[in-house]
Amino acid sequence: MNQESMDSQEQAIALDRLIQRLREFAHERAWEQFHSPKNLSMALIVEAAELVEHFQWLTEQQSLQLSVDKLAAVEQELADIFIYLIRLSDRLDVNLIEAAWRKIEINERKYPAENVRGKAGKPSEY
Amino acid sequence: MNQESMDSQEQAIALDRLIQRLREFAHERAWEQFHSPKNLSMALIVEAAELVEHFQWLTEQQSLQLSVDKLAAVEQELADIFIYLIRLSDRLDVNLIEAAWRKIEINERKYPAENVRGKAGKPSEY
Amino acid sequence: MNQESMDSQEQAIALDRLIQRLREFAHERAWEQFHSPKNLSMALIVEAAELVEHFQWLTEQQSLQLSVDKLAAVEQELADIFIYLIRLSDRLDVNLIEAAWRKIEINERKYPAENVRGKAGKPSEY
Amino acid sequence: MNQESMDSQEQAIALDRLIQRLREFAHERAWEQFHSPKNLSMALIVEAAELVEHFQWLTEQQSLQLSVDKLAAVEQELADIFIYLIRLSDRLDVNLIEAAWRKIEINERKYPAENVRGKAGKPSEY
Repeated sequence: MNQESMDSQEQAIALDRLIQRLREFAHERAWEQFHSPKNLSMALIVEAAELVEHFQWLTEQQSLQLSVDKLAAVEQELADIFIYLIRLSDRLDVNLIEAAWRKIEINERKYPAENVRGKAGKPSEY
Repeated sequence: MNQESMDSQEQAIALDRLIQRLREFAHERAWEQFHSPKNLSMALIVEAAELVEHFQWLTEQQSLQLSVDKLAAVEQELADIFIYLIRLSDRLDVNLIEAAWRKIEINERKYPAENVRGKAGKPSEY
Repeated sequence: MNQESMDSQEQAIALDRLIQRLREFAHERAWEQFHSPKNLSMALIVEAAELVEHFQWLTEQQSLQLSVDKLAAVEQELADIFIYLIRLSDRLDVNLIEAAWRKIEINERKYPAENVRGKAGKPSEY
Repeated sequence: MNQESMDSQEQAIALDRLIQRLREFAHERAWEQFHSPKNLSMALIVEAAELVEHFQWLTEQQSLQLSVDKLAAVEQELADIFIYLIRLSDRLDVNLIEAAWRKIEINERKYPAENVRGKAGKPSEY
């Protein structure tokens, strides 16, 4: 096994462990009672908004050149979103990685490269 | 290598491949110009809201008992959020899994199990 | 003029004055440069999320029975949303009240009372 | 009474009528059961995201120069946000206009013009 695939494996074990760790985290605090999909979707969008808040007054260019402190704060918001995304997927028994691959296939058909090159927005808006 | 770790490895390779595939997806469409962190944070919260929309009129109990069709639709929203989360993290050179572990450690200290058991909300609200 | 319509008039003058006051507030701070519709839409959703945060772990019933302190905090979030909504509408030259009436007419046709009584969700979901 | 104050009065009556009309709209459809503050906060943020979606791939400059069609669509989203904001405030017995004035006073103290001129973000970030 080469270095890259070992890193991949470590990463994968970490992903499975994240699901498990977040279950334990909730269980240790008796928080399962609050973790309905409805409530978790609310918590997730609240974290997404904390991310948006970092960027709201920046130009696009500035958002690509964050200071070290700002990037560290943004990284925590990305982590919070990921944590609730994993937790909600776990509650609904959704495999995030498989779901992402399926969605990419759908997007491939919805946005054929030759039709949408350099154009943003919904297909209906071209 | 046992079955579980093989699954883990496949999952990890898929995760690395997701990052790579989403780069290609954007490149094939010349969409890098739109993918500033500012814009991606907006796209991410839009997807988070499409998730919330599925739950807005459901009771918490109903949100745990989704129909097959509804669950399939919710899974696509989870995938969309994951896709933008990966894409944004890639643009900022953030390792999502490491960031999640670091955040869990922070949360461990912020919400000690013995203090918050069965209580939701911010520490300041107890 | 009876008491009710006088109250109404005072309220209306306050509404017009709000638009004017928020223009001045931005001008005094040289904030017009930040107040593009794009940025204001981000600020608005961030405030909406601060509202959602107050309700994320509450039951629906609890959300109807807020403590005095919680209600005061929620009221500030509602005000923040209103402020950005007024400011964004002003930047786009949209008359909020007229827009709301037009939308209610659209909703009347989209959700005929006899068809949707007691049912939530989009017409396509019935 | 001059023309301006008559317009103001008409506008105010429309505002009071909006509150009343939205109560009736919900009642005619037996939707009160869905309109807990928790659920209405979710509906509000979903509408805020539909607004954000219109701006997500635009530059700030483009967001100031919307086409007639785009502006009409944006106006509907602003109306939807306003409708849920009014409805939620009504459910919580909050007077939006008074709340906005109180919040502007708070903001005056939080962001003194001389300190924040030309600077965006939280006071802690200057």
